[in-house]
Amino acid sequence: MSTPPTADDRLARGLAEMARITGGHTPHLDAVDGIAPDLARYAAEFAFGDIYARGGLTTPERQLITLGVLAALGDAEPQLAAHVRAAFTVGLTVEQVVEAVMHIVPFAGFPRALNAMTVVERVVAEQREQGTAPVPPGPGGERATTGS
Amino acid sequence: MSTPPTADDRLARGLAEMARITGGHTPHLDAVDGIAPDLARYAAEFAFGDIYARGGLTTPERQLITLGVLAALGDAEPQLAAHVRAAFTVGLTVEQVVEAVMHIVPFAGFPRALNAMTVVERVVAEQREQGTAPVPPGPGGERATTGS
Amino acid sequence: MSTPPTADDRLARGLAEMARITGGHTPHLDAVDGIAPDLARYAAEFAFGDIYARGGLTTPERQLITLGVLAALGDAEPQLAAHVRAAFTVGLTVEQVVEAVMHIVPFAGFPRALNAMTVVERVVAEQREQGTAPVPPGPGGERATTGS
Amino acid sequence: MSTPPTADDRLARGLAEMARITGGHTPHLDAVDGIAPDLARYAAEFAFGDIYARGGLTTPERQLITLGVLAALGDAEPQLAAHVRAAFTVGLTVEQVVEAVMHIVPFAGFPRALNAMTVVERVVAEQREQGTAPVPPGPGGERATTGS
Amino acid sequence: MSTPPTADDRLARGLAEMARITGGHTPHLDAVDGIAPDLARYAAEFAFGDIYARGGLTTPERQLITLGVLAALGDAEPQLAAHVRAAFTVGLTVEQVVEAVMHIVPFAGFPRALNAMTVVERVVAEQREQGTAPVPPGPGGERATTGS
Amino acid sequence: MSTPPTADDRLARGLAEMARITGGHTPHLDAVDGIAPDLARYAAEFAFGDIYARGGLTTPERQLITLGVLAALGDAEPQLAAHVRAAFTVGLTVEQVVEAVMHIVPFAGFPRALNAMTVVERVVAEQREQGTAPVPPGPGGERATTGS
Repeated sequence: MSTPPTADDRLARGLAEMARITGGHTPHLDAVDGIAPDLARYAAEFAFGDIYARGGLTTPERQLITLGVLAALGDAEPQLAAHVRAAFTVGLTVEQVVEAVMHIVPFAGFPRALNAMTVVERVVAEQREQGTAPVPPGPGGERATTGS
Repeated sequence: MSTPPTADDRLARGLAEMARITGGHTPHLDAVDGIAPDLARYAAEFAFGDIYARGGLTTPERQLITLGVLAALGDAEPQLAAHVRAAFTVGLTVEQVVEAVMHIVPFAGFPRALNAMTVVERVVAEQREQGTAPVPPGPGGERATTGS
Repeated sequence: MSTPPTADDRLARGLAEMARITGGHTPHLDAVDGIAPDLARYAAEFAFGDIYARGGLTTPERQLITLGVLAALGDAEPQLAAHVRAAFTVGLTVEQVVEAVMHIVPFAGFPRALNAMTVVERVVAEQREQGTAPVPPGPGGERATTGS
Repeated sequence: MSTPPTADDRLARGLAEMARITGGHTPHLDAVDGIAPDLARYAAEFAFGDIYARGGLTTPERQLITLGVLAALGDAEPQLAAHVRAAFTVGLTVEQVVEAVMHIVPFAGFPRALNAMTVVERVVAEQREQGTAPVPPGPGGERATTGS
Repeated sequence: MSTPPTADDRLARGLAEMARITGGHTPHLDAVDGIAPDLARYAAEFAFGDIYARGGLTTPERQLITLGVLAALGDAEPQLAAHVRAAFTVGLTVEQVVEAVMHIVPFAGFPRALNAMTVVERVVAEQREQGTAPVPPGPGGERATTGS
Repeated sequence: MSTPPTADDRLARGLAEMARITGGHTPHLDAVDGIAPDLARYAAEFAFGDIYARGGLTTPERQLITLGVLAALGDAEPQLAAHVRAAFTVGLTVEQVVEAVMHIVPFAGFPRALNAMTVVERVVAEQREQGTAPVPPGPGGERATTGS
């Protein structure tokens, strides 16, 4: 078993990671803050402060895995919507997000992929309406280099 | 609906992709070749020829998603073992594979991550015994740049 | 294999158990009564008459397990809402219901727990509006003793 | 590994199968056609052109399996609604569709079956409103013979 | 809610159904008879006596659904092995069993189908060794007509 | 969002909780300590230090929920075996453990319950062989009062 980092700034680090990745848009966590404030704190501390903040993978790589896992799990629509938005925040393009969902078809089947793709389409449409559209896919689209 | 590419070489493309990614080591597909030869062919054609061969993501990025999805699904030990080996074949390090599994904990829980990590450990141990050990993690390890 | 109890009163026992536990509020069962009346009957006979009526655990203990299992399964929102209400009917407090959902995070991950907690919040809010609020959590709240 | 059929007409065969089975009513596929046109094409080619078009089982038998699998997976409501409609298109009765969902209770539990049965009820109600009601179950109802 | 049939012979009917369908080979139920004898009884009463004994579908049709559902659920290897054997007992051919598993690929993905097909292969091999081989698939094989 | 407790002793608290609940027997965590030492640490800190150490439920109540959730998830055999042992360590009887698994049948189906019950039987048999048998169920068995 490893030794933990000094934990004083664990929540601070988690909140900073969460803000960096989600752009502060976490309605799925805010929704339970009244009844179970510790649950949102654990998400900040553990999911973002402990796990997302680890080295070894770039943030876009972690976000691609998140998209695949949430799509494959199913029944995670609010979380998936928040993480599609986060994917754009950390520099992934629509094309990459679409591909991450497409990639799960052979492993988890069409229904899970179709439901997740519907969420992607909705988030992209919302962002286009709000004028915060991500870089469009296709020949002219700039593509984030996730490994650099 | 999009129009398909000419399909004459679809199986050929799938087999080439499968060989490139798995190094020809697919015991989980070979196991059913006697009773259901079409199933292994569909995996080659669809999973590798259609999906893995798509653009938009690098092969290491696709492999990271595969690892996360298989770990989160659970009950996919033979497939996960084959895809951990494939991860090393396409240039991912032990550290990156470990991180991909670690990343699922907040989304799919400890049991799925622990079972998957046990598979990672077993595959790494097997490869070290066979002298085909992947690049070890840590300061001296060369890390594949997945985005280039 | 064991021998069954005399089965004449099995449905009667199931309906009595169901009324005791749910307070007669089972919209998720009523919804299918038109198209598949046997399905609601099986739920009464088997889920309530056979399983809930067994000894060995107290009803509040069984209800805590039900909450954890439904939250972990996912995609069981109508059932979960009915069983959160039932939890209050059998004497569990808001705090205990919140803790049962919180407890699944390490095993089934944040998305399942967040979705379930959203259901808990909604049911509690509905009950407060209707003036049938359960005992509030916190220092002043009476806590059901589940083991006695 | 088997050899594939000539693939030139694979999409054509898939589209024909899809039209025959769904009656051209596939809102769950159309929904993602803007953002991921290949996904609907893969569903046509692979799910319908490769799998549904295989021999060895009748189409009604395949549709019964589809209903059971979608109900058991959970979180596949749009797909299940489309496939309940498809079940009627290929000649299954309301009774048979209800029984297929009922059959999953011992294997996948009441919540999955209840959610699926709610979808069946909704589709049947919609079709009755539109005057395209399937053959009603019961003594007077003609029953499709699935094995011929 | 419907009214139940007289229940005096419910266990007897379940045991008869179970014997007819499984040929008396239920190691996955026998395994827990020491520690939880009621669990095997519930399976006989409810799964076989209540559900399998219902009308509206033929037994082979029900068994095809069982195979698809167990394969899609995953982690049900002992149950799947018993139900593959049962499929042959009720007159399904190897080809039909293979097709039932193949049919789940688009809905539940390759890993679940591959694991299930491995179980089918193992059961068929065991039965061939024991001289109780089911009717082989192919041109010369007699095919059960499931709808009659 | 709530404020965290001082975190200096979070790992210490987690390790103490883990020792108290599991009796120091955690082979499923030890198995990955070589390849991913942080994973076992996170389990100690988060699962035991953060979640199990919360108030609002007794430890036996939390353990009953754990058993139900692990059984319902499936594919968690090593974790389930460790938590059945832990259940006895925190004072639950064989009867209560059997009932917790039995209780999931209506919600998650027979296959998950049968697999989990097989694990319970194996752990009980191992403990009886080692002379560390838990209190047997039945008339003479002392029953832990979980709510006091």
